[in-house]
Amino acid sequence: MTETVAAPARTNDRRLRERAERVIPGGMYGHLSARRLPETYPQFYASSEGCRVVDVDGREFVDVMCSFGPMILGYRHEKVEAAAAAQRRLGDTQPGPGPCMVELAELLVERVDHADWAMLAKNGSDATRLCLATARAVTGRRAVLAAEGAYHGWSSWCNPYVDGPATPADAEVHRYTYNDLASVRAAVEGAGAENVAAIFVSPFRHDAGYDQEMVDPAFAAGLRRLCDDIGALLVTDEVRAGFRLHHGSSWEPLGVTPDLSAWSKAIANGYPIAAALGSSRCAAGAERIFATGSFWYQAVPMAAAIATIHALADEDAIARMVAAGERLREGIEKQAVEHSIEVRQSGPVQMPALSFVEDTAFERAAVFCGEAAAHGAILHPRHNWFLSAAHTDEDIDRVLEATEAGFRAVRAAFGHG
Amino acid sequence: MTETVAAPARTNDRRLRERAERVIPGGMYGHLSARRLPETYPQFYASSEGCRVVDVDGREFVDVMCSFGPMILGYRHEKVEAAAAAQRRLGDTQPGPGPCMVELAELLVERVDHADWAMLAKNGSDATRLCLATARAVTGRRAVLAAEGAYHGWSSWCNPYVDGPATPADAEVHRYTYNDLASVRAAVEGAGAENVAAIFVSPFRHDAGYDQEMVDPAFAAGLRRLCDDIGALLVTDEVRAGFRLHHGSSWEPLGVTPDLSAWSKAIANGYPIAAALGSSRCAAGAERIFATGSFWYQAVPMAAAIATIHALADEDAIARMVAAGERLREGIEKQAVEHSIEVRQSGPVQMPALSFVEDTAFERAAVFCGEAAAHGAILHPRHNWFLSAAHTDEDIDRVLEATEAGFRAVRAAFGHG
Repeated sequence: MTETVAAPARTNDRRLRERAERVIPGGMYGHLSARRLPETYPQFYASSEGCRVVDVDGREFVDVMCSFGPMILGYRHEKVEAAAAAQRRLGDTQPGPGPCMVELAELLVERVDHADWAMLAKNGSDATRLCLATARAVTGRRAVLAAEGAYHGWSSWCNPYVDGPATPADAEVHRYTYNDLASVRAAVEGAGAENVAAIFVSPFRHDAGYDQEMVDPAFAAGLRRLCDDIGALLVTDEVRAGFRLHHGSSWEPLGVTPDLSAWSKAIANGYPIAAALGSSRCAAGAERIFATGSFWYQAVPMAAAIATIHALADEDAIARMVAAGERLREGIEKQAVEHSIEVRQSGPVQMPALSFVEDTAFERAAVFCGEAAAHGAILHPRHNWFLSAAHTDEDIDRVLEATEAGFRAVRAAFGHG
Repeated sequence: MTETVAAPARTNDRRLRERAERVIPGGMYGHLSARRLPETYPQFYASSEGCRVVDVDGREFVDVMCSFGPMILGYRHEKVEAAAAAQRRLGDTQPGPGPCMVELAELLVERVDHADWAMLAKNGSDATRLCLATARAVTGRRAVLAAEGAYHGWSSWCNPYVDGPATPADAEVHRYTYNDLASVRAAVEGAGAENVAAIFVSPFRHDAGYDQEMVDPAFAAGLRRLCDDIGALLVTDEVRAGFRLHHGSSWEPLGVTPDLSAWSKAIANGYPIAAALGSSRCAAGAERIFATGSFWYQAVPMAAAIATIHALADEDAIARMVAAGERLREGIEKQAVEHSIEVRQSGPVQMPALSFVEDTAFERAAVFCGEAAAHGAILHPRHNWFLSAAHTDEDIDRVLEATEAGFRAVRAAFGHG
């Protein structure tokens, strides 16, 4: 195992971490904290272009996290940046929205089959909360069902750690097991069918720390029927997967239509925006809630979103992400076999997850990803990765050099199997 | 009363409103909806520069709402835009924060006396929720006190309309009356002193639909003592007022120090960012909560915030806002006397509010602001206004021409008094 990270080359990151320790709780918080990652990962980044990122010590990486999803066309994508710049020359945060708000709402309604309207916000958590609020206003009911372990944002209704580890469970939230319709029926019974406002579901199971699981089409269809039977609304959380699986709602290929859906992350290629989309049945309910934010009407992210959504189609982005993802999955499979190391690859190839057998404490994953980072690829040991349309064969081959180093390190530390 | 708004000149706004009706619930939502404003107001804006904004039909206005606060130095302020552009050429949303996150946290800690650390987010609602979460984690308690009618964001804990008009009251939230310490003591007793995690308070009372009320220094000091007595944390909500009253926490001139404070709106002159600031006593609690967002680590708004905070001091922004606000208040007072119309002007001059006596349905305010909009000034009939450092004497005199027309219209419609 070659140590490729020379200590002097990491001084900027180390100094920034020391300064951050003094003025940011714990030195960093949330999903971009490098505190729980191997020490080869940088905490602070200097620049980004395409799918390449450079840390504050000048090390270049192929980014296979895409900032946890927002980057989908490549950082600083020419058409998206041009659209954002053109809008910026006019205005951004203004006393009211720009015409691009209407254009974006129209475009989302055109691209997403179930959507008749859009409300725009900033965070993915805003979008899921907008969906919950609308479902409650439409149905006059309070209870909500969500899959055990599913992440629907940091809001109090779905995040048990929002107020620290001791937060009491929300009595209005009932849990089911993903892909298990019987568990959904049991949760409905527990809540009382007449109390259920909404059933939340992700397009596939992508809980951090677990192998991913594609949705069983019969489960998706069964959820739709169950919602109709009990008068509840079906809400898909597209915040993480949206526009990476399909140029529309992720369940359109299954023929399953939600009433509401929550979007964010990739829809503006990194510009801050979120959207709640809904069917006409939900429009009157959406009018009755009170939700707003100082920056929800910003014109620049809306212009960026319009350009992103057009570019996704024009550049056949999903096919390119699938091709890159397949190349990566096949390459990793081949390496694992050569090293006689048993791994599981799960989820859609454009949002891949890798785990090692007998690795419940993520020790192998940490060695693997830590060594991959030292060799120039940003992966994640406990969270799915993201491909973008900017990942070329050359980039993937560069990633595979890093994963080859990762497998060597795992074999050195843990032996075969 | 001259009708200055020719119908043909409003066709773009009207057409956009018609399109919006089809794809946005109710045609628009939240605080920037023009639905409840007089019809002379535009819904959609084309561009903005300094304190002037242009609607989609080419009408120019002096903006006295500053996008409800975010604009504090003038739209497209040269230094802020240059800092944002320089960062944008490097990267914005990346796999981790940039060095500017540390710089901004350090700058906030330097400028705000009570702050030893900062957490950065997107919405003002994120910042208030971060403060609540931290207070709960620090104290191990759940209850929170907030003033009757105070707005602390759209989150479920403080917004009774988040799930539609029928949302049940939050049993953990207890209300007091602003500036009434006896009512705070009664609310503490109702909650149980040993259950109170935090008392939320705005730097002054700025509830929409009411005259504003400056804080009684004895009330502020009393809140601090009461929090210390019962082991609760004092949280100031600076989202609306922050950096318009003082180059630091708004209560520094009173010598009253909160434990936590929530910021957003003006801190990056329109770029989307929010901050929770806290004392070292709260740092360990802040580490224990789980809060994050896909765009919370964006580098461009942080670079813009750094430039904004420096420019506020370098350009003596508060003194300029005060000067503009005094000119406006004096001018309006003189006009009201000349027209023999009784008005109340309240709050700090840089965040002024105007109301008419015997106007509980805001009819006079609507006529006044509607006519002012027709004559080129954006005010608001039920919400405080905002001055910026970009408002010159000439801009204020332009606003006063519009308010003069507003008073004439009020007198024409309602007579004197």
